[in-house]
Amino acid sequence: MVFWKGLFSGTESSSSTLSAANSVPVQITGIKPPGANQIVLSLDPNLDLYELEELCDAVGWSRRPLRKVRKALQNSFIVISMWELRGNTRRLIGFARATSDRAFNATIWDVVVHPDFQSKRMGKALMKYMIKKIRAEDISNITLFADPHVVGFYDGMGFVEDPEGIKGMFWYPE
Amino acid sequence: MVFWKGLFSGTESSSSTLSAANSVPVQITGIKPPGANQIVLSLDPNLDLYELEELCDAVGWSRRPLRKVRKALQNSFIVISMWELRGNTRRLIGFARATSDRAFNATIWDVVVHPDFQSKRMGKALMKYMIKKIRAEDISNITLFADPHVVGFYDGMGFVEDPEGIKGMFWYPE
Repeated sequence: MVFWKGLFSGTESSSSTLSAANSVPVQITGIKPPGANQIVLSLDPNLDLYELEELCDAVGWSRRPLRKVRKALQNSFIVISMWELRGNTRRLIGFARATSDRAFNATIWDVVVHPDFQSKRMGKALMKYMIKKIRAEDISNITLFADPHVVGFYDGMGFVEDPEGIKGMFWYPE
Repeated sequence: MVFWKGLFSGTESSSSTLSAANSVPVQITGIKPPGANQIVLSLDPNLDLYELEELCDAVGWSRRPLRKVRKALQNSFIVISMWELRGNTRRLIGFARATSDRAFNATIWDVVVHPDFQSKRMGKALMKYMIKKIRAEDISNITLFADPHVVGFYDGMGFVEDPEGIKGMFWYPE
C-alpha cells in the first residue's frame, strides 16, 4: 500500500480511479510477467470504459454499447480490475465482475485477462480474489457460465460443472 | 385492475403488500385451478417472509435465515409473487426472482409453485411473466440453473441447456 501511495501521489489529474484505498497488490507465485514491476487488483467499479473496451477487444469479444457497460458495472456486486504498474504508468490487464442478491447467490461474468498476461497465473489470481471477496460477504453459492475452452481452468479453481445434474440454461427467443 | 381495486379497497390493515399498482391478473389458458376465483401476479418485493417460508416448506426446500431472505429480495432485480384470490382472502401460491446487472444478464432463482397448483400451467405463467419483465428492460441474456427434474419444463419455455457447450459451474470450497 505504501508503495502504491508513493507511486501515485500527485497524480490527481489521472483519469484512472486506482487508489490505495481500494487496491491490493497481488501475490503471484511462480512465473513473474516479464518486466512487470507490480500487479495490483482494484475493487473500484468506476473504470475508464474505453480502457475496458480495449482489453475486451484484445481477446476478441464483441463490442457492447458503453452506456450499457456502465450500467452493468454500476449494478454489479463486485467489480475487479487488474493492473500492471510499470514506472508511473499503469495498464488494465484483467477484469471480472459478479452479480448477486448479496445474500445467497453470486454469479461471475466477463472474466478477461489480456493475451500478453495469459498463462501467467493472472487469471487464477483474479479469480481467487473474486472468490475471496464473495465469500467475505457470507455468500455460499458462487456460480458462472464457462465457455468450453475455459471449463478446465475453472475446474482447477474448484468449480464443478453440472453438480448433482444441475444444468445451466439460456433462454432463446422463440 | 378495477376488479382488483374493488376487492381490496378498505383493507389498509392487511399484512399483504398486494396492490392494484403492482399486480396483474394472469391469463391462464386451459385448466383452471378448481375453485380458484382468480390468479394474480405481483412485482412487490416486500413479501411477508413467513408466508414465503410456508410456500417453500410446502415444496420441501431447506429453511433459510429470514434475515438473508429479506436481503436477497431487496437485492433482486425482479421479484414475482403469484396469488390465488378467493373471496376476500389471498394465498401465496408461487414465487420467482431474478438477479441482474440491469444491462446484459439476468439470472432466475427460486422458482416455486405450491404443490396444489402444480401441473396447472401456473409455473409456465409465472416464468412467462418473468421473461416478459426482463425483456422489457432490454436484457438479452436470461439464464438459470435447473435441477435435473425441471430441465424439461424450462426446455419447453425456450431455455436451452449448455448452448454452444457453455457449462453452468458451481464453486465448492476445497
